Amino acid sequence: MIIRQLRLFNTLIRPIQFRFIFQQKNKFFKMSDQPVQPPEQVAEGEQKSKKQLQREKKEAEKAQKKKEHQQEQKQQEQLIQEEDNCVGRYRDLNLIQSQERTNRKWTKVGDVDQTLVNQVILVRARIHNSRVKGKLAFLVLRENYNTIQVVAEKGEFASAQMLKYISGIPVESVVDIEALVKQPFKEILSCTQKVELEVRSIQVVSRSLPMLPFQIEDASRRITDFEDGVQEQKQEEPQQKQDKNEKQQIQVMLKTRLDNRVIDLRTPAKQAIFRVQSGIGLLFREFLVENGFIEIHTPKLIGGTSEGGTNVFKLKYFNQDACLAQSPQLYKQMCLMADYDRVFEVAPVFRAENSNTHRHQCEFISMDIEMVIKEHFTELLDLMGDLCIYMFKGIEKRYQKEIEIISQQFPFEPFKIPEPVLKLTFEEGVKMLHEAGVNQDPHDDLDTVNEKILGKLVREKYGTDFYILHRYPKKARPFYTMPCHDDPNYTLSYDFFMRGEEIVSGAQRVHDPELLVKQIKEKGIAVEPLKDYIDSFRYGAYPHGGCAFGLERVAFLYFNLKNISNACMFPRDPVRLFP
Amino acid sequence: MIIRQLRLFNTLIRPIQFRFIFQQKNKFFKMSDQPVQPPEQVAEGEQKSKKQLQREKKEAEKAQKKKEHQQEQKQQEQLIQEEDNCVGRYRDLNLIQSQERTNRKWTKVGDVDQTLVNQVILVRARIHNSRVKGKLAFLVLRENYNTIQVVAEKGEFASAQMLKYISGIPVESVVDIEALVKQPFKEILSCTQKVELEVRSIQVVSRSLPMLPFQIEDASRRITDFEDGVQEQKQEEPQQKQDKNEKQQIQVMLKTRLDNRVIDLRTPAKQAIFRVQSGIGLLFREFLVENGFIEIHTPKLIGGTSEGGTNVFKLKYFNQDACLAQSPQLYKQMCLMADYDRVFEVAPVFRAENSNTHRHQCEFISMDIEMVIKEHFTELLDLMGDLCIYMFKGIEKRYQKEIEIISQQFPFEPFKIPEPVLKLTFEEGVKMLHEAGVNQDPHDDLDTVNEKILGKLVREKYGTDFYILHRYPKKARPFYTMPCHDDPNYTLSYDFFMRGEEIVSGAQRVHDPELLVKQIKEKGIAVEPLKDYIDSFRYGAYPHGGCAFGLERVAFLYFNLKNISNACMFPRDPVRLFP
Repeated sequence: MIIRQLRLFNTLIRPIQFRFIFQQKNKFFKMSDQPVQPPEQVAEGEQKSKKQLQREKKEAEKAQKKKEHQQEQKQQEQLIQEEDNCVGRYRDLNLIQSQERTNRKWTKVGDVDQTLVNQVILVRARIHNSRVKGKLAFLVLRENYNTIQVVAEKGEFASAQMLKYISGIPVESVVDIEALVKQPFKEILSCTQKVELEVRSIQVVSRSLPMLPFQIEDASRRITDFEDGVQEQKQEEPQQKQDKNEKQQIQVMLKTRLDNRVIDLRTPAKQAIFRVQSGIGLLFREFLVENGFIEIHTPKLIGGTSEGGTNVFKLKYFNQDACLAQSPQLYKQMCLMADYDRVFEVAPVFRAENSNTHRHQCEFISMDIEMVIKEHFTELLDLMGDLCIYMFKGIEKRYQKEIEIISQQFPFEPFKIPEPVLKLTFEEGVKMLHEAGVNQDPHDDLDTVNEKILGKLVREKYGTDFYILHRYPKKARPFYTMPCHDDPNYTLSYDFFMRGEEIVSGAQRVHDPELLVKQIKEKGIAVEPLKDYIDSFRYGAYPHGGCAFGLERVAFLYFNLKNISNACMFPRDPVRLFP
Repeated sequence: MIIRQLRLFNTLIRPIQFRFIFQQKNKFFKMSDQPVQPPEQVAEGEQKSKKQLQREKKEAEKAQKKKEHQQEQKQQEQLIQEEDNCVGRYRDLNLIQSQERTNRKWTKVGDVDQTLVNQVILVRARIHNSRVKGKLAFLVLRENYNTIQVVAEKGEFASAQMLKYISGIPVESVVDIEALVKQPFKEILSCTQKVELEVRSIQVVSRSLPMLPFQIEDASRRITDFEDGVQEQKQEEPQQKQDKNEKQQIQVMLKTRLDNRVIDLRTPAKQAIFRVQSGIGLLFREFLVENGFIEIHTPKLIGGTSEGGTNVFKLKYFNQDACLAQSPQLYKQMCLMADYDRVFEVAPVFRAENSNTHRHQCEFISMDIEMVIKEHFTELLDLMGDLCIYMFKGIEKRYQKEIEIISQQFPFEPFKIPEPVLKLTFEEGVKMLHEAGVNQDPHDDLDTVNEKILGKLVREKYGTDFYILHRYPKKARPFYTMPCHDDPNYTLSYDFFMRGEEIVSGAQRVHDPELLVKQIKEKGIAVEPLKDYIDSFRYGAYPHGGCAFGLERVAFLYFNLKNISNACMFPRDPVRLFP
């Protein structure tokens, strides 16, 4: 009963409110008219400067526009005096609070196509933009990354009052629209959907504030220049300024985006990125489950220190000292010693590294793998190579639409990955660097710069954006890495590279408890806190190895997203804890 | 070259070593013989007490056994003097360090069946138990939860020296065995595999310490009695003591198990539990992806406080105050406001609750769901009911073998779930409790006791182990819960119950920022730290709802595992941070 009364209120009273607002607005326009200078003020025949002429021209145009606008407003006012033939077909809904379930069918914007022409459908979406001109209203609705054009023309299905109501809905508001699907007169280029909707009714589900922190459109512009981690978008390049709708384009800085993440995530590229990222996790799982792996969950709250204790977040766990897991390394190995012979885990890891770079995060998703091997770490390496190919091909196959959308904002060269996957030894890599005149200690790790250089050299020589570098020097790897049997300076370890940056790190692990203790001591790490881990190898140990993928890095490098925070919904760097 | 020499050493020198050990051992037996009293010491005809007679009988038996043992040892010694026809077919392997890759095929224990009879296969597995008697050695090999019997009989394929070597391998050691698959003379009841292996060669990959913290067998016994969270296994019941191999059965306490978790996880039931648990995650994902959900990852490091700030683990994040996420609640809602309309997350959550119960953990895996709704929270509820049925049916269908193995240790009644899923309102639940004479405030939450009682009442009345209770009182639910439109004392919320315990909690959420602020204030929570969250509803908000499953609870209650730590690989309770 109460609901019905409220509805009656909405349909009858609201149009009156709008009329009032409209009159107020008109008054404002009239007032602002007065100070405008008539162009006839300057005496004829007088010498006029070029500038002056231009100004006069502009003012004349302005006055003309204002006149038109005034006429339009008047017209609108007259129209609104007419009887409203659309009462009940435009209104703000009450707060949806499970009052009723009508079982009506809502169609997704992305599903509206030719097959639905001449049908009346119901859509719930955001108003992406709106333009009301005279007897016509044009809206673009957006749902996820899909957009569709909506028109309302004064007549049987739209009264002047209804058009006025539409014009007052702020962009980003959520609306329910009933509309007829129509084939447009000319092709719609600006929307993803190629058919048009003709409004039958419009109801506002939730109004947006009229002022957004930034416009979705501005945050969706093509990235053309970039400084690592500092600024995401610079002034557009001259050739792009010559685009049809030439305007001074507004830049949205990375900080502004991240401070208002919910708005930034609404941009089409972000919508697509995180859909693909969900798919990367799926592809990863599919391949592993198919190959006999099980998913495990290991604790993130760790007693004492984690893997040696540097760069860990520390906290109090009731009365005990604890820290956050830097990786599930020790636990996934213990799972193997507990006879789960092939395991994986997809979970957050935490690194208290004060690194403010384009590719580091203090919390990220590690996709970890650990498996028994029979004889040789290449058993694992081959499988991981196959996994990568499965993932990259899967992305290409399943997310064609998303790839297209992402590339509109983040242009990238297609990801080259010839089969079989290229494998180089660390020593071969060092040799390539030396031949190119680059300094590299053969017994020390590659730094970021040399990694990038080597990536370029490899691309030139082998035509691949993806390769595996193995047999890293002992100094560069953690204590649990198995040394090479033929050279104690090197280890049975490897990194995978995408576009010259590391995405995977792994190795055969030490499964002999005595060798393990020896290596822990060599690295200067305390043995006692690792007791449970070391002991797990004392009751019969399977030879094994594993690796870890950084989930965000895969998307970040596949799509060349410039900054890792573009592949992380709510990023955490040394200064950012919000939102 | 070095490897070959080492191998030669192993095959030639090791048998000599064993001979030496064997002689030493024999000497020991001879020495220990001397103090034994001859039974003839007591004068004949003398009155003997019953006790004395028993003792004498025992001593005679002992002496007889010793004699037999001595003869056996002598026999063995004689055999070992013979030439070893199995040189090179038993040895300890060098540390596997990726020296070579032979591409030999290893067969999994679980795959060895009738189809392989008369074939020689290669297996890598643990020695589950071993028994060498005279010319025969019986081993049981174990891989995951699968076991197979292995025999070695002195003759062409096993020398005395080889049998001796086999008898010296501690249980839980990892071995490579080449063997002929044979149909056994009589059915093997004690192993999962019904065929037998006849050894051709045996190589130790990794030796276990001879003393385990406890025996796998003891840790695998059937659970028959239980005190919540305190003790896992008590004295066996009398009728079970009459089993064939009647023995005083050793109990393994929960604490011992958890302190030596890697050994405990090797028991068949645990092997099966965590395989099913991996499957539960998969089933969850399959259903959701099929229904248009994407997987998200939200931060676990949260600025300020989380959802109000009670029971959170606090830490320093560089120079800022942070805490660990109690749930992804606020973030998953923000994702919805960012136009990802159906999301899920499977991730750890952290609760600093000092609860030492059978069902609480301080860190556990939350399977979270959030989705937009059009009109009514039952849209969500129906889908979640379908999800549960999909999961439960999937477990039953895919994990028949695991269910059988788990039920051997943790006997449980089959899980009853009639369709459609039973839905009761909170008020209906309260009425049932009142009718049964149980006190329950209709405006306050159910406690654990009343939850259990209600579960029993529901089972009796409706014949189901699974039901949904909805419309919880306002007092019992968090600030983000949408109130009922028809009664402000109740909310659009629900819990799912399995065997009378909660596994899922959820609700329609408040999507109106003003109502949200009002409810936050009513709960006495600071508004300022929640600013980003509240603001996310200011720019057009979709009506939505969601819920969260406790992953460990699903397995724990489905299989009636008595204590949640049986469904958690490395549990974290208020006192446990290791391993």
